[in-house]
Amino acid sequence: MTRQELIAQIKEKQSFLCVGLDTDLKKIPQHLLADEDPLFAFNRAIIDATAPYCVSYKPNLAFYEAFGIKGMIAFEKTVRYLKEHYPKHFIIADAKRGDIGNTSAMYARTFFEEYDVDSLTVAPYMGEDSVTPFLGYAGKWVILLALTSNKGSMDFQLIEDREGERLFEKVIRKSQQWGTDDNLMYVVGATRGELFKDIRRVAPKAFLLVPGVGAQGGSLQEVCRYGMTLDCGLLVNSSRGIIYASSGTDFAEVAGEKAYELQQQMALELANYKG
Amino acid sequence: MTRQELIAQIKEKQSFLCVGLDTDLKKIPQHLLADEDPLFAFNRAIIDATAPYCVSYKPNLAFYEAFGIKGMIAFEKTVRYLKEHYPKHFIIADAKRGDIGNTSAMYARTFFEEYDVDSLTVAPYMGEDSVTPFLGYAGKWVILLALTSNKGSMDFQLIEDREGERLFEKVIRKSQQWGTDDNLMYVVGATRGELFKDIRRVAPKAFLLVPGVGAQGGSLQEVCRYGMTLDCGLLVNSSRGIIYASSGTDFAEVAGEKAYELQQQMALELANYKG
Repeated sequence: MTRQELIAQIKEKQSFLCVGLDTDLKKIPQHLLADEDPLFAFNRAIIDATAPYCVSYKPNLAFYEAFGIKGMIAFEKTVRYLKEHYPKHFIIADAKRGDIGNTSAMYARTFFEEYDVDSLTVAPYMGEDSVTPFLGYAGKWVILLALTSNKGSMDFQLIEDREGERLFEKVIRKSQQWGTDDNLMYVVGATRGELFKDIRRVAPKAFLLVPGVGAQGGSLQEVCRYGMTLDCGLLVNSSRGIIYASSGTDFAEVAGEKAYELQQQMALELANYKG
Repeated sequence: MTRQELIAQIKEKQSFLCVGLDTDLKKIPQHLLADEDPLFAFNRAIIDATAPYCVSYKPNLAFYEAFGIKGMIAFEKTVRYLKEHYPKHFIIADAKRGDIGNTSAMYARTFFEEYDVDSLTVAPYMGEDSVTPFLGYAGKWVILLALTSNKGSMDFQLIEDREGERLFEKVIRKSQQWGTDDNLMYVVGATRGELFKDIRRVAPKAFLLVPGVGAQGGSLQEVCRYGMTLDCGLLVNSSRGIIYASSGTDFAEVAGEKAYELQQQMALELANYKG
């Protein structure tokens, strides 16, 4: 998917919501366990209920790998279902991969050719040759970890070098020599409201994937105040707050309502954007 | 596997060789493609031929994921084959995972409970809560990326903070508060001979997993001169140099010879160790 197509979707739906499909057999409603493929049954129902209110879905691979071969089949079916029924939604495989060049190239082939998702989250620690193999696919995106939403993000990402540049800023600045705003986004946690200003200094137009609104305590308003651009420039993810909002037979309906609520708040933020 | 068991294996075999199972359908001998599961057929033959000369195997998940469900079945069969026939070999799942706490916990369950491997490579960028979920399993190990063997390692891993501490040193120093020499190793590329001294200053006794000997140009002698400890403290990996040494029907035999050659050099290094 191109940047222009993504922006068009955001404007049309007045939403920059990404729904995180962190689908856990231990957390999905009990009655689904009778299904042949409970993970996929859950995802399909969540997708059908939330699709009008979001522009993106983000299955986290950890949750599918945890159920072995069956889990990976559920992941594959979910991606195929999205591509068939909701081809305008931007699919993010949240896998946080990254390895030496020839190995990253294998991962790129897996996610961009086999599964054919739109984007993949990538960890930057191993540097340029671990990232660039993912950047050679037309219409596909790398979403590079920059400043994450968890507590441990403070251990290394905020380290300052002798010139006062912090690691997350260096990751963004350097990686912009490898990719462009058309194939490279960054993960920036919503729990880092005040730092969005600094991010925008280094990456004024790049799209940011923002986890951490909801369960992790980030504020949508603060993210928008400091992070939004003329093209929106944000994909805000919510996982647990939507998909596990109800554990009853009404789980999909309630997920749809939660997604709708967020979409309404996002429409307001888009309307109020002053540049 | 405990540290003592690993050290005992190294002493008994006079080897600290790890064979990297980067098994690629495009590189294995053509005649194996007729097999029902060519990836596993290749691995089994390589394992049977090299097992006397090595103490560890390291399948890189990228290569198995690239072949989808079939690839993951081959990975699972390889791990089971090792556990059944060579239970004293240390199995490393080279997956370079790492995510926020609850997601890392899912990966830990997958690799340490489902696949039941001895260790997993983990990326440090997301900090403490991305690493500690892997450290709660008795006899299981985290192998944390510190200083990798690729060119891109220079992009971020060598950044110096205001006190002159480099990122890879900080990763090692900080992580030693999370784990111990009994459940935490580090990846240090063989291409970094001169830096092994600095690593040993921060981690005098930790085991180091050392890729980059052979195809990537690292020197075994230099690694041993600066990195070896009284307990050996090294697992030196070779992948392509062993498993693809011949592409004919004699591939396993030649792999065995290459492993034997490395084992002989390693026995010399162990004998010459002066402390």
